[in-house]
Amino acid sequence: MNATPLPMSPNEALNLFTATRSRTQALAAPLCPEDMMLQSMEDASPVKWHLAHTTWFFEEFILKPRLPEYMSPDDRFAVLFNSYYVQAGPRHARDKRGLVSRPDGDAVRAYRDHVENSLNDLMNANRADMDEIAQLVELGCHHEMQHQELLITDLLHGLSFNPLLPTYKDPEPLAVTDETPLNFTRHAGGLVEIGHEGRGFAYDCEGPRHKVWLDPFEIADRPVTNREWIAFMEDGGYSDARLWLMEGHAVAQRESWEHPLYWWRQDGAWWTFSLRGAQPVALDAPVVHVSYYEAEAFARWAGGRLPTEAEHEVAFRDVPISGNLMGDAKDLGALRPLPGKGIWGDVWEWTASDFAPYPGFRPPDGALGEYNGKFMVNQRVLRGGSCATPKDQLRPSYRTFFYPHQRWQMMGLRLARDVG
Amino acid sequence: MNATPLPMSPNEALNLFTATRSRTQALAAPLCPEDMMLQSMEDASPVKWHLAHTTWFFEEFILKPRLPEYMSPDDRFAVLFNSYYVQAGPRHARDKRGLVSRPDGDAVRAYRDHVENSLNDLMNANRADMDEIAQLVELGCHHEMQHQELLITDLLHGLSFNPLLPTYKDPEPLAVTDETPLNFTRHAGGLVEIGHEGRGFAYDCEGPRHKVWLDPFEIADRPVTNREWIAFMEDGGYSDARLWLMEGHAVAQRESWEHPLYWWRQDGAWWTFSLRGAQPVALDAPVVHVSYYEAEAFARWAGGRLPTEAEHEVAFRDVPISGNLMGDAKDLGALRPLPGKGIWGDVWEWTASDFAPYPGFRPPDGALGEYNGKFMVNQRVLRGGSCATPKDQLRPSYRTFFYPHQRWQMMGLRLARDVG
Amino acid sequence: MNATPLPMSPNEALNLFTATRSRTQALAAPLCPEDMMLQSMEDASPVKWHLAHTTWFFEEFILKPRLPEYMSPDDRFAVLFNSYYVQAGPRHARDKRGLVSRPDGDAVRAYRDHVENSLNDLMNANRADMDEIAQLVELGCHHEMQHQELLITDLLHGLSFNPLLPTYKDPEPLAVTDETPLNFTRHAGGLVEIGHEGRGFAYDCEGPRHKVWLDPFEIADRPVTNREWIAFMEDGGYSDARLWLMEGHAVAQRESWEHPLYWWRQDGAWWTFSLRGAQPVALDAPVVHVSYYEAEAFARWAGGRLPTEAEHEVAFRDVPISGNLMGDAKDLGALRPLPGKGIWGDVWEWTASDFAPYPGFRPPDGALGEYNGKFMVNQRVLRGGSCATPKDQLRPSYRTFFYPHQRWQMMGLRLARDVG
Amino acid sequence: MNATPLPMSPNEALNLFTATRSRTQALAAPLCPEDMMLQSMEDASPVKWHLAHTTWFFEEFILKPRLPEYMSPDDRFAVLFNSYYVQAGPRHARDKRGLVSRPDGDAVRAYRDHVENSLNDLMNANRADMDEIAQLVELGCHHEMQHQELLITDLLHGLSFNPLLPTYKDPEPLAVTDETPLNFTRHAGGLVEIGHEGRGFAYDCEGPRHKVWLDPFEIADRPVTNREWIAFMEDGGYSDARLWLMEGHAVAQRESWEHPLYWWRQDGAWWTFSLRGAQPVALDAPVVHVSYYEAEAFARWAGGRLPTEAEHEVAFRDVPISGNLMGDAKDLGALRPLPGKGIWGDVWEWTASDFAPYPGFRPPDGALGEYNGKFMVNQRVLRGGSCATPKDQLRPSYRTFFYPHQRWQMMGLRLARDVG
Repeated sequence: MNATPLPMSPNEALNLFTATRSRTQALAAPLCPEDMMLQSMEDASPVKWHLAHTTWFFEEFILKPRLPEYMSPDDRFAVLFNSYYVQAGPRHARDKRGLVSRPDGDAVRAYRDHVENSLNDLMNANRADMDEIAQLVELGCHHEMQHQELLITDLLHGLSFNPLLPTYKDPEPLAVTDETPLNFTRHAGGLVEIGHEGRGFAYDCEGPRHKVWLDPFEIADRPVTNREWIAFMEDGGYSDARLWLMEGHAVAQRESWEHPLYWWRQDGAWWTFSLRGAQPVALDAPVVHVSYYEAEAFARWAGGRLPTEAEHEVAFRDVPISGNLMGDAKDLGALRPLPGKGIWGDVWEWTASDFAPYPGFRPPDGALGEYNGKFMVNQRVLRGGSCATPKDQLRPSYRTFFYPHQRWQMMGLRLARDVG
Repeated sequence: MNATPLPMSPNEALNLFTATRSRTQALAAPLCPEDMMLQSMEDASPVKWHLAHTTWFFEEFILKPRLPEYMSPDDRFAVLFNSYYVQAGPRHARDKRGLVSRPDGDAVRAYRDHVENSLNDLMNANRADMDEIAQLVELGCHHEMQHQELLITDLLHGLSFNPLLPTYKDPEPLAVTDETPLNFTRHAGGLVEIGHEGRGFAYDCEGPRHKVWLDPFEIADRPVTNREWIAFMEDGGYSDARLWLMEGHAVAQRESWEHPLYWWRQDGAWWTFSLRGAQPVALDAPVVHVSYYEAEAFARWAGGRLPTEAEHEVAFRDVPISGNLMGDAKDLGALRPLPGKGIWGDVWEWTASDFAPYPGFRPPDGALGEYNGKFMVNQRVLRGGSCATPKDQLRPSYRTFFYPHQRWQMMGLRLARDVG
Repeated sequence: MNATPLPMSPNEALNLFTATRSRTQALAAPLCPEDMMLQSMEDASPVKWHLAHTTWFFEEFILKPRLPEYMSPDDRFAVLFNSYYVQAGPRHARDKRGLVSRPDGDAVRAYRDHVENSLNDLMNANRADMDEIAQLVELGCHHEMQHQELLITDLLHGLSFNPLLPTYKDPEPLAVTDETPLNFTRHAGGLVEIGHEGRGFAYDCEGPRHKVWLDPFEIADRPVTNREWIAFMEDGGYSDARLWLMEGHAVAQRESWEHPLYWWRQDGAWWTFSLRGAQPVALDAPVVHVSYYEAEAFARWAGGRLPTEAEHEVAFRDVPISGNLMGDAKDLGALRPLPGKGIWGDVWEWTASDFAPYPGFRPPDGALGEYNGKFMVNQRVLRGGSCATPKDQLRPSYRTFFYPHQRWQMMGLRLARDVG
Repeated sequence: MNATPLPMSPNEALNLFTATRSRTQALAAPLCPEDMMLQSMEDASPVKWHLAHTTWFFEEFILKPRLPEYMSPDDRFAVLFNSYYVQAGPRHARDKRGLVSRPDGDAVRAYRDHVENSLNDLMNANRADMDEIAQLVELGCHHEMQHQELLITDLLHGLSFNPLLPTYKDPEPLAVTDETPLNFTRHAGGLVEIGHEGRGFAYDCEGPRHKVWLDPFEIADRPVTNREWIAFMEDGGYSDARLWLMEGHAVAQRESWEHPLYWWRQDGAWWTFSLRGAQPVALDAPVVHVSYYEAEAFARWAGGRLPTEAEHEVAFRDVPISGNLMGDAKDLGALRPLPGKGIWGDVWEWTASDFAPYPGFRPPDGALGEYNGKFMVNQRVLRGGSCATPKDQLRPSYRTFFYPHQRWQMMGLRLARDVG
C-alpha cells in the first residue's frame, strides 16, 4: 500500500496510533448499535465493519506475524473483517456485511481494546524491529483514516433511507455569509513534475514523481457553490442532453437525477439531508454529492472544464489546505461543507483525469502492495480533501478515486479553463 | 381480516392479549439489538419491525379510533410500521425495513409498553363497546401470532448469512429414533363440506363453508422425512427434468438448488443451519425448507402426488394436532421439526391447491378486511402447522399460503395418491 | 399430448393435413423474409420458426420412426426446431430464435415441401399401421393449429415495435354497430361433470371427465367490450389499488399499464395497433390484449367476478361457437375481434381457475405425452376461442392457459356473479 | 465529427464516394435478407440498418439542406435510421433495431440507389458550393467506412448464435507459417508531439496536435499471437486474480471467460468461429476478440504492459501499415487476422490510455460536431487498424475507442515495457 521512505519514529507512530484510534471511537460514540449495522448499498459498509476491519489490519499485518503467542479473540474475525478475502463465496459477499449481527457492537469494541492493548505492549517492548513496526503502524493509521472518511459517508447514506431523518449530531444554524466572488488564477504550464517527492508517508499510486507537459491554464480560486449549482438546475442543466456525456445522460435519466444527492424541494426552498438532519441548502457552501457526470456537464454549461489532476496538483501544492477537515477526537469538525470556509478542503474535487498508473509505477510486493493498482480502470481522480477527511491524511500528492456515477462521498468540483 | 361470530369474552381477550404479547417478548429475549435489525431479503422483515408493526396494529385499529385523547409516542410510527402504506415511496419500501435504525430497540420496547398499558386501561374501563373491542383484540392477537411465526423464520434466514453460524438457542442433541414406517389411509371422498364452520375465530379466507366433490384417495400418516428426501437427492431427483414442472426446474437450475435450504455437506454427512446453530440433519424428522417445486417433484418421484387442500382438511380435521407447536412464553417449543413427534404439526405441508377464494367469498369492508383476498394469485396453500406456529393460532380450516419458489418458512410435504 | 380414442380415418387425417398445412402457408403468404425473422420477446417466436417447428413435428414423430430410408434435408434441423431440446445451451436458447438467419425462408419452405411430400407418400402407401399414422397426423395438425394462433399473435407483437406501424393485411373500416346490451343467464349449478367425453380429439389435460360441485351462478351473454373497458379506465380503474390483486397492481405500476396492450391516445380518441395497422378502437368489439390482473380488477370494479372454468364449460358447452375464428386457407377471418359478432369466439376469456390437473390426471408416456403437465403451476385457464384460433381446433372442453401478466394473446374476459 | 482543412477536390470526393458505396454493397452481397436482420446485442446493429443509416447521413446533411426539391422515398426514414434521435422512446430504442422488418432489404437497396443518384446529380451540377459539398461527402464516406467495419463485426456476432455455424465467405485453409520471433524496439521518449497534423481528413478527437512527455520505453514489433495467448491460458491466466484489475476479474468470473470470444475446445484443439465458419485457431496469427481486461492481465503475466496511445503513435507513425486491411469492392481482404502478415494492421491494439480530449480540444459546432466528445468517459483507446478496416480510413493519428469489457471488435494487443 505504500512505497517510500518513512522517517516516522516509533514514538511518533505510537502517538499517531493513539490519536487515530481515539478519533474512530469518537466518530462512533453518538451511535446506537442499530445505527452501526446499516448497509444501504454494496459500495457502503456498516460502521461496525469499519471499526472491526481497521482493527483486523493491525492484527493481521503486525501482531500475528511478529507475536507468535498472540491470541485473537476469535480466529474467524480474520475471515469476517478481511476486505480482500474474495474466495469466501456469496454468503459472505461485500454486499452482505450488513447481515453480520454478531459479533455485536460490544464484542467489536472488546476486539478493538484487545488489539490496541497488544499493540501498545508490542511497541513498548523495545524490540529490534521497531522501525519496521513503526512504519507498518503508520500505514495502518492511514488506512484507518481512509475508513474514518468512509464511515462518515456510509453512515450518512444509511441514515438517509430512514423517513424520520435522524440526526447524527445536533442541528446548528449556518452562519449567513456573503456571496463569494469567483476568480481564476493563471498558470504558465510547461514541463512540470508531479507525484510524491519521497519524504513522509504516501500511497504507492502517488509515485513515481514524473514529468508532465502542461499548456497554460486558468483555475478557479474556490469550488463551485450551491448557488451556482441551482442556477445550472434552473437553466435546465439536468435535461439538456447536449451538455452531457452520453453515458452520463443515460445514468441521469435512469436514476431520475434532477439535483445533487440528498436534496429535495420543500416550500419553495431546497433542503438537504446531512449528518445534522434536514437542513436548508447553504447557498454559498461548496456543492457536494454530485457525480463526475454532473460535474462534467456543469463545467460545460459554465463555459469551462474540469482541471486535470496535474493542473490541480501544480496549482495547489503550495497553497495550505484551509477547509474544515477533521482534527483530533475532540474536534471532528463541521462534518459538512461550510460557506466561505477556505480555498480548498471542504469537498473533494473531481478532475478530468482517469485513475491511471504514473509512468514507471510498479506495485510493491505482497498483500500490502496490492491495494491501489487493482482499481486503475474506469475510475476518476479527485483532488483536495473534505470535511470528512482527517487532517493527518492529506498531502499535495494525494489521489483519491471513485467511479463517475458515485455521489455518496463528499464530492464537488472546481472549474478550470484553457488560455488563449 | 375476519368474518365470523366471535364468542370470545372481554376477559378471554385480555388473557389472550397478555399471553400473546408475552410470547413475542419471550421470542425476542435472546437477541442483541443487532440481531433485531437483520433483513436478509424483501420477503423477510427485521425482528424489530415485527415487534413494532404488531403493536401499531392495536394502536391504529383500537386505541386511536376509540380513545380521542390517546397519544402515540411518535406519530410517525404510523407510517413507519404500517405494512399497507404503499404510497410511502421507494425510500420506505418493504425491502428497506432493515435500514430503519431508529427508533432503536429500546424505543420500540417502550412503544410496546405504552400501547400495552393503554390497551389494558381501555379494557378495564367498563365501556359499552367491550364486545367489539374484545373481537378486535382477538384479531390483533391472531395477527401478532402470524408475525411470531414470521419473526422466527425471518430471523433464521437473517442469521444464516453470518459465516459464524450464530445460535439463537443453545444447541441440544436430537434423541436418536427409529425409522418411522410410512402408511397410507384410505378416504372415500364423495360430496364433502370444507371451510370454517362459524364458531370461534377464523380469517375471511377460511369461509364460506362449501361443498366439494372428492374422488376416493389415500393420504400418508406422516410427512416426508429427511431420510426419504436424501434418497430422492441420491437418486438424482434434483437434476432429472422429467420429474419437475418446467418453471420449477428453471428456478432450481438458476438458483443451483441441490438440497433443501440451509443444508450443506460436510465430512460425508448432511448438516443444516437452524436456530440452534449448525446441526446434523435428523434423518427421521420431517424435511423442512423445501419449495413447492421441490415438493411436487419429490411426490412424482415417489409415485404419488400432493394432496389438495380439501383432501387434507377432510383427512385431518378430526385428528388433533400433535406436533411441537409453540406454547406460551415459558414453553416456546423446539423451534425445529423433531423426529417422530407427531402425525402433523412439525412442518407446514404444501398442497396441490392454489390459494383461491372459496365459492361465495366476499372480503369484509374496510381496511381490516383487505387482508387475504389481495394475495389470491400464484400462491399455493399449505395446511397443517409447524414448530414455529403458536398453538392458539391453529384450527382445521386454517389456510396459509406462499409462492411456489419460497423456502424460508417451515415448509415440508405429505404424500397422497389416487385410488384405483 | 393426447389420450383418447381417435376415430379419424386415414383419409380424413390426410384431408386435415392438407387443409392445415395450406392454412399455415396462407398465413405466411403476405410476409417478406424480414417479417418472418421477428422475435420481440422470449415468449414469442419468429414466424419462420413456427413454419419449421410444426414441420419438424411430423418428421420427428412420424417419418423418422416409420421410414428407415427417410432423409432429412438437414439433420441439424432436429436440434434447431425442437422446442423441447433444453440441453442445447445458452446460444440456442428460446429467446435466441430470432438469431437463426439460416436456414433462410426459402430453405424452410423447401423443408416444408419435403416433409409434406414424404408424408403424402407414406399415407398413400397402404401400410398396416395406417390407423396409428392417422392418429399421429391428427395430433400433428392440432399441434400446428396451436402454432397458427401463436404465429399470428407473435407476428402482431413483433410488428408493433416498428415505428412505421406496418400492416399485415390491408386496413378495412369496421361496420358501425349499436351498443350491445349485457344480459346475465342464471345456471342452477349442482353436481356436474366437466372434461372431455372421450370421442374425438382432445389434449391430455382435458380429461379425465370428472364431477364438480357448483353453486348457482350467473354468467354474461357476451364478453366485456372496449366501451366498458374505457369506462373502467375513465373511472380510474388502473390506479385504484383497492381493485387489484397486490401482485397485479405491482406489475401494472412497474409496466406503466394504463390501457390494454397496443392502445394509445391520439387526438382525443383511442387507437390500437392491429394486423391491419393503426385503427380506432371499435367501441362495441370485445376488449382484447388485457392480462389476467387487469381482467380481475375490471370484474371487481364491475361488481362481478370472473367465472371458473367449470362454470364456463357448463354454461357454453351446448352453445355453438359463433365468433370469427379462422376457416380454411381461403378464409382466414377478420384476425381481430369484431363488434357484435357472436356470443363467444372473438377473444379467449380469462377464468378464475388456475391451470391444474383434473382429478386422476396422468400424463401419457413418452415424449408426446410430456406436453401439458409440465405447465401446471402459476398459469390461468382461458376458455372460448378467438379470431386467431382455427375452427377445427375447438371443442367445449378445450383449455388454453397463460401467465397472469401476459397480454399478447387475443385475451379478453366475460363477467360472472354469485346468486343470492 | 471533423475539424481540419480538407484539400479533397470534388472529383476526388466523388471517386471516394463511388468506391465507398461499392464496397458497402460488396460487403452485403453474400447475405440473404434474414442475415441482414440480425441484431444480437444492443452494441451491434443489423446489416440492413448500417446500409440505411450510412445513406441517411448523405441525405440528411447534404441533400436535404442543399436541394429544396429533394424528395426522400419515405420521410419517416429520417427517424428510423438516425442514430442520434434519442427522443424516439423505448419502442424505437437502439436495442430494437432488429425488430424493424420494414422497410425490407429491397426497399433499403432502393433507398441507397435513390440517394446515390441524387448525390451524383448534385455533384455533377457545377454548383458554387462544390468545395463544401466535397468536404461533406468525404466526411460521409469516412462515416460509412466506420460502419463497414461495424457491419462486419456485428454480422460475425449475429451469426455466432446460430448453432449451424454459417459461413459468410467460403472457408479456406490458412498457410502454415513458422513461429514469429518477438523483438522489442527501444524509443528514447522525451518531449514529443502527437495528434493530427492538419493535412488531410481527420476526426475532431485526433487534434489538437500537442506536446507530451514520454519516458524511454520499448515496444514489441508485432502483436501478441494466439500461441502466446494459449500459453497464458494454460498457465492459469484466466483464474489468477492477482494478474487482473479487480473490475476485470469480476467481469471475467461473471461471464465465465476462459478464452477469447468465439473460441471453443474440440478434440484437443482450439477452434474459433469466423466469417469463414468454424476454423482451427491459427497459432501464429494475432490473437483477436479479447477485452481490455484480458489484454491488461496478459501484459502483466508476460512481464510487460500495454503501451500508451502516445507511445504507440510515436513508435508507428513512420511505419507504413502492412496488415490485411480492406481494399476496394473487388478486394475486401481476408476478413480475419493472418499469421505473419505484417507489423500492424491485422487487429486493433488496446492501449493503456483512456479516451480523453487532447489539451485544447473543443468539439465543432452543430450536429456533425457532436460525435466523439460525448464518448469521452470509461472508454479505452485502441490504435492500429484491422482486417475489417478499410485502407482509406487509416492515418497515424487515428483513435478508435471501446469499453474495456467489449470483445466483439477485431481487438488484440501489443506489449510495451519500461526501460531501466
